[in-house]
Amino acid sequence: MRNIKLTLEYDGTNYAGWQIQPGEIETIQGVLSETLTGLLNEGIKVAGASRTDAGVHATGQVAAFKSTTTIPIVGMQRVLNNLLPPDIVITGIEEVSLDFDPRRHAKSKRYLYRILNRSSPSSLNRFLAWHIHYPLDIDSMVRGARRFIGCMDFASFMARNSGATHAVREITSIDIRRVDDFVEIEVTGAAFLRHMVRIIVGTLVSLGKGKLSPDDISPIIESRDRRKAAMTAPPHGLYLQEVAY
Amino acid sequence: MRNIKLTLEYDGTNYAGWQIQPGEIETIQGVLSETLTGLLNEGIKVAGASRTDAGVHATGQVAAFKSTTTIPIVGMQRVLNNLLPPDIVITGIEEVSLDFDPRRHAKSKRYLYRILNRSSPSSLNRFLAWHIHYPLDIDSMVRGARRFIGCMDFASFMARNSGATHAVREITSIDIRRVDDFVEIEVTGAAFLRHMVRIIVGTLVSLGKGKLSPDDISPIIESRDRRKAAMTAPPHGLYLQEVAY
Repeated sequence: MRNIKLTLEYDGTNYAGWQIQPGEIETIQGVLSETLTGLLNEGIKVAGASRTDAGVHATGQVAAFKSTTTIPIVGMQRVLNNLLPPDIVITGIEEVSLDFDPRRHAKSKRYLYRILNRSSPSSLNRFLAWHIHYPLDIDSMVRGARRFIGCMDFASFMARNSGATHAVREITSIDIRRVDDFVEIEVTGAAFLRHMVRIIVGTLVSLGKGKLSPDDISPIIESRDRRKAAMTAPPHGLYLQEVAY
Repeated sequence: MRNIKLTLEYDGTNYAGWQIQPGEIETIQGVLSETLTGLLNEGIKVAGASRTDAGVHATGQVAAFKSTTTIPIVGMQRVLNNLLPPDIVITGIEEVSLDFDPRRHAKSKRYLYRILNRSSPSSLNRFLAWHIHYPLDIDSMVRGARRFIGCMDFASFMARNSGATHAVREITSIDIRRVDDFVEIEVTGAAFLRHMVRIIVGTLVSLGKGKLSPDDISPIIESRDRRKAAMTAPPHGLYLQEVAY
């Protein structure tokens, strides 16, 4: 038996997210598992590091599956990329120890959120960035972002249907930069709650619009009340960039 | 009567190019003209600066149309962006003198060609860049590109069905740079023949792969023979960036 680790890039636009769901719904995990099952002629279920939501993209998702195949690893990457639909690509493949678990062994994850911040929308980025026409105050966003750094109870930044047993998580960095017409927000942490990055981004945007001030952030965190934080940013601006082990 | 100039960004993936064609085929010019005809309740045909091919994108196409409408210009941009499909966006609008012709009055055009140069393809860029897995020799491409600068007969770099009366054109600059996994080629000139930028890019890629050397370029130009130049680069890496007046 071998354990094979995959690094994945995908365009989440046409998928109901990572996780297999009942019914005929297309998911990344489902398409990968089916493709591998067909190729290797054994029942394969791929495990992923992060359960990305519908419409969320990845440039560095990590997944793993166990197989008895003897196919060399490099050939397998090429064959898989020919079999998979073009919106899912294997960018890395390696054999790892049998006990490797992509979710439990992840030390940290880095997400990128892309905002297009200009008056007119963009045809080319319509599935790849959140368009906000109101000019954002980056300085206020940077000052507010600092309040999120550390190990805290992030219950205010958790989807209501999350199902997590507790909401204590650690964020190690939030970098915000303007790149041409875009505002890029990079969030790194050990682990995240459901919708956590998107609710943090929505709240940072409220800072950028002047609806909240940096001093509002700590009271929102302390309230442990989802209604105190701002809207959940839409999924199509979010990219899972890297999972570190 | 007013003459209204539009600056356009479009994702060319789902269109048969700029120019209206017989039949039910979707074109950028067709969709714009129909949308304006519906909005302004008068027969409008938009004229464009460049007849981009099927699959080619634009971030700075320029178009113009004549109308008797009294709708203020700013309101018109907002209304049009709501009426147009999301893969066509008006990024600028202004009233110009009645004799302004977007094609005849263009002083120069700048095109960008994006190549993704890494081993694995990219899901997120599958309609937005040409994937070349073979590592390109940028130095050879830069040296070869210099031979294209100037006013010359570019018959070797013209689609066979072009219909141009002569092939003398002037290229003022070709900039080639590596940006992360991408090679970006920016070509500026007064005017271009059909497929000219794409055949130049295909030929520069042959230099990057070592199939041609920089000294081969001038003889290819002098031959005035399309068969001597390399393949036409695919349309989906090409962007019309700017038209200057």
